[in-house]
Amino acid sequence: MEENKLTMDKLVSHCKNTGIVYPGSDIYDGLANTWDYGPVGVELKNNIKKLWWKRFVQESENSFGVDAAIMMNPRVWEASGHVASFTDPKMDCKNCRARMRADNLIEQHSKGTVDVDAMTNDEMQAYIDEHHVNCPVCGNFNWTPIRQFHLMFETSRGLAGDEKDIIYLRPETAQGEFVNFLNVQRTTRAKVPFGIGQIGKAFRNEITPGNFTFRTIEFEQMEHQMFCKNEEQGFKYYAEYKEMAMQFLIDLGFNKEHLDFKDHEKLAFYAKAACDIIFKYPFGWNELNGIHYRTDYDLARHQEFSGKNMYYLDPVTNEKYIPHDVEYSIGADRLTLAMLCEAYSEETLEGGDTRVVMHFHPAVAPYKVAVLPLQKNLSEKAREVYKKLSKHFMCTFDEAGSIGKRYRRQDQIGTPYCVTIDFDTLENNTVTLRDRDTMEQIRLDINELETYVNSKLAF
Amino acid sequence: MEENKLTMDKLVSHCKNTGIVYPGSDIYDGLANTWDYGPVGVELKNNIKKLWWKRFVQESENSFGVDAAIMMNPRVWEASGHVASFTDPKMDCKNCRARMRADNLIEQHSKGTVDVDAMTNDEMQAYIDEHHVNCPVCGNFNWTPIRQFHLMFETSRGLAGDEKDIIYLRPETAQGEFVNFLNVQRTTRAKVPFGIGQIGKAFRNEITPGNFTFRTIEFEQMEHQMFCKNEEQGFKYYAEYKEMAMQFLIDLGFNKEHLDFKDHEKLAFYAKAACDIIFKYPFGWNELNGIHYRTDYDLARHQEFSGKNMYYLDPVTNEKYIPHDVEYSIGADRLTLAMLCEAYSEETLEGGDTRVVMHFHPAVAPYKVAVLPLQKNLSEKAREVYKKLSKHFMCTFDEAGSIGKRYRRQDQIGTPYCVTIDFDTLENNTVTLRDRDTMEQIRLDINELETYVNSKLAF
Repeated sequence: MEENKLTMDKLVSHCKNTGIVYPGSDIYDGLANTWDYGPVGVELKNNIKKLWWKRFVQESENSFGVDAAIMMNPRVWEASGHVASFTDPKMDCKNCRARMRADNLIEQHSKGTVDVDAMTNDEMQAYIDEHHVNCPVCGNFNWTPIRQFHLMFETSRGLAGDEKDIIYLRPETAQGEFVNFLNVQRTTRAKVPFGIGQIGKAFRNEITPGNFTFRTIEFEQMEHQMFCKNEEQGFKYYAEYKEMAMQFLIDLGFNKEHLDFKDHEKLAFYAKAACDIIFKYPFGWNELNGIHYRTDYDLARHQEFSGKNMYYLDPVTNEKYIPHDVEYSIGADRLTLAMLCEAYSEETLEGGDTRVVMHFHPAVAPYKVAVLPLQKNLSEKAREVYKKLSKHFMCTFDEAGSIGKRYRRQDQIGTPYCVTIDFDTLENNTVTLRDRDTMEQIRLDINELETYVNSKLAF
Repeated sequence: MEENKLTMDKLVSHCKNTGIVYPGSDIYDGLANTWDYGPVGVELKNNIKKLWWKRFVQESENSFGVDAAIMMNPRVWEASGHVASFTDPKMDCKNCRARMRADNLIEQHSKGTVDVDAMTNDEMQAYIDEHHVNCPVCGNFNWTPIRQFHLMFETSRGLAGDEKDIIYLRPETAQGEFVNFLNVQRTTRAKVPFGIGQIGKAFRNEITPGNFTFRTIEFEQMEHQMFCKNEEQGFKYYAEYKEMAMQFLIDLGFNKEHLDFKDHEKLAFYAKAACDIIFKYPFGWNELNGIHYRTDYDLARHQEFSGKNMYYLDPVTNEKYIPHDVEYSIGADRLTLAMLCEAYSEETLEGGDTRVVMHFHPAVAPYKVAVLPLQKNLSEKAREVYKKLSKHFMCTFDEAGSIGKRYRRQDQIGTPYCVTIDFDTLENNTVTLRDRDTMEQIRLDINELETYVNSKLAF
């Protein structure tokens, strides 16, 4: 077996052809950078979300879930700093109308030798003029001045009269955890340290989205805030969540060699530590998830802006303090994308045929079992088996084409087990179970199938 | 035992105090009609979504899931008719600034004797003037003229230059299924009849939301479209999905007496049949879910607007046709609300104490098991049991207060089983398992717990 190199084009086309991900609004020629999960992709993403929730909420005694509304009181985004500064410096090419980020242009031009994060707009403008940085699309030098472009999507609620009330689509889920800190603490009677986890959509009006589902204007975050007492605990949980975040990926089946920690070079003024786990995508190493020790900044800001006391009173020591927070955040879409990249392989079989296989962990795999009648006249029995197993996990049924062709179809969507119903099945109630990765087959009684497959789904 | 009448006020307060649902952006005094699910509510709603998916996608051989983007090409909403006509006729009271729907005002004033759906804006205006319909809030007659108020939330993507590209937040999930009809059919090689299911958020700029989570500006839909050949099949699936929708509710634990079918009095011109299942909420009978036989209207409209051929070619008969569609749609938030109403009871115990109990089906219950050490010095053993069970389902741990008080806490969030660790546990590895509904206790070996509880979770 040998592996061929995966490109993003190949992956996008594979996803489109197998029902993993389609371009959004496809029949209307799409809407830039939106994507729809198809029948296979929705199961994959849901499984990833369930496993994350299991690990970081269900199995974590001191963690509690929430599901906050996407639309929040606009004051939330003043407190968080998004209204004031969640912007990108943009320039438009007057020649080809390409929209670019000034900071990206300078980074590329200077090959990273310039500390662009420290530059003001005027300094960026001066650099671009001085170095005559051309448009990378059309090659001309014909820019609009730099303008700050706001990344929050705005909409408005109708109020009485003609007043309009601007509200934002949340650009991150984190504030839903912060504003509910007191509610969760009060109703669960949790003692600090405790955590709040959430999975939900967020929206960013990105200038330069791209790389398939890597950066999109609409995306789903999986996030956990660990609230703790002080700096000592903050650093402790920062270290713990780094480890747990990495272990989660390894348990999902990621190769350690394709993952790495990368400390943030610069920290926000309130933060004490921050890093990403980066992954080796086909387009290069890039972010997969972040861990961020944010001190007591977020809760303190909300206390300031809401006027509500965010202090926690320790029932044992009677100490009063605003808890510190360690944030661990990972994009559900981005993790699904990384999982697709990691699982994909092209293998040459004996005889020269190739097969595309998605080597998903069985717990992640969209379908757990494909039920395949060897011949059409075995369909009835096969449907019986399919019905029985479908009560327990996601299965698929396929009776079209040769058995080899059907195996290939399941390989390319990562179904770990193919159950074939043959004439012996009618005689003795046994079936053939074929393993996706080894392609080995064993014979099992129909009544053993559920237990056998379930045992492989443990996570 | 006797039951007290549930009011919405009582339910809202119960939800807020037990971590089921908090007001959205609570510390900022909220954002009208947004709600956040707390630690208990998020599990409840997720369980309901999972059970719906299991029933209508996983266990349905001919159904496939999708998860389409919230932001779609605006042409989608032209095809669907939303751009042209998804509006409410609104009037503002110039005196008290209350915003009202003119059609609602007339309906209430005429006590339903006027067919308001058939009236034009001018006719509604004439009725209100003629009958001098006063503002129900302040009693004055001082209205602005009727204006059509659009229910789609608008936002815009930044494009090159100063152009803005209006996009909408989807007001329904259905179009995500329709625009993917061809993609799903092609990639699954499904034969008509087949279905597409989806769970996802939708947004409506409602003038008069209210009744807690019954009508909110942001809500989650669970929806299934059954694509079939012709009118004969359409009526057949309409009848089948009516039955399946009702059965699903009954399996969730709803009392038949609290549910009913209600045919729509008027049908859209393209529809052949439509009904709701209505539920007896504390505020009266109202919609819970809808079933709608929409003929080939939706796919035909998308063919017209997208220019893409939406015909299905029957591989056996070689017939070519645009499939008909039977839509079954239920709000995840609304079903969660109905479930809360249905499950809630106040019971007087022997001795005069009362307990509030949420009688959730174990599969629906937020926590399956509460692990309770009888005394603090049994905590270590109890944590061991908690850790073991948490691998399999959502559990909670409580060591604060008397055992009776802890039972009450679990009753009020509907935890079906309380497992108490006592001194015998240390001797013989057995625990007491107390049933929420009967309050009876049995003694079980710790190693039997998982199987026992799992057997109750079957759905």
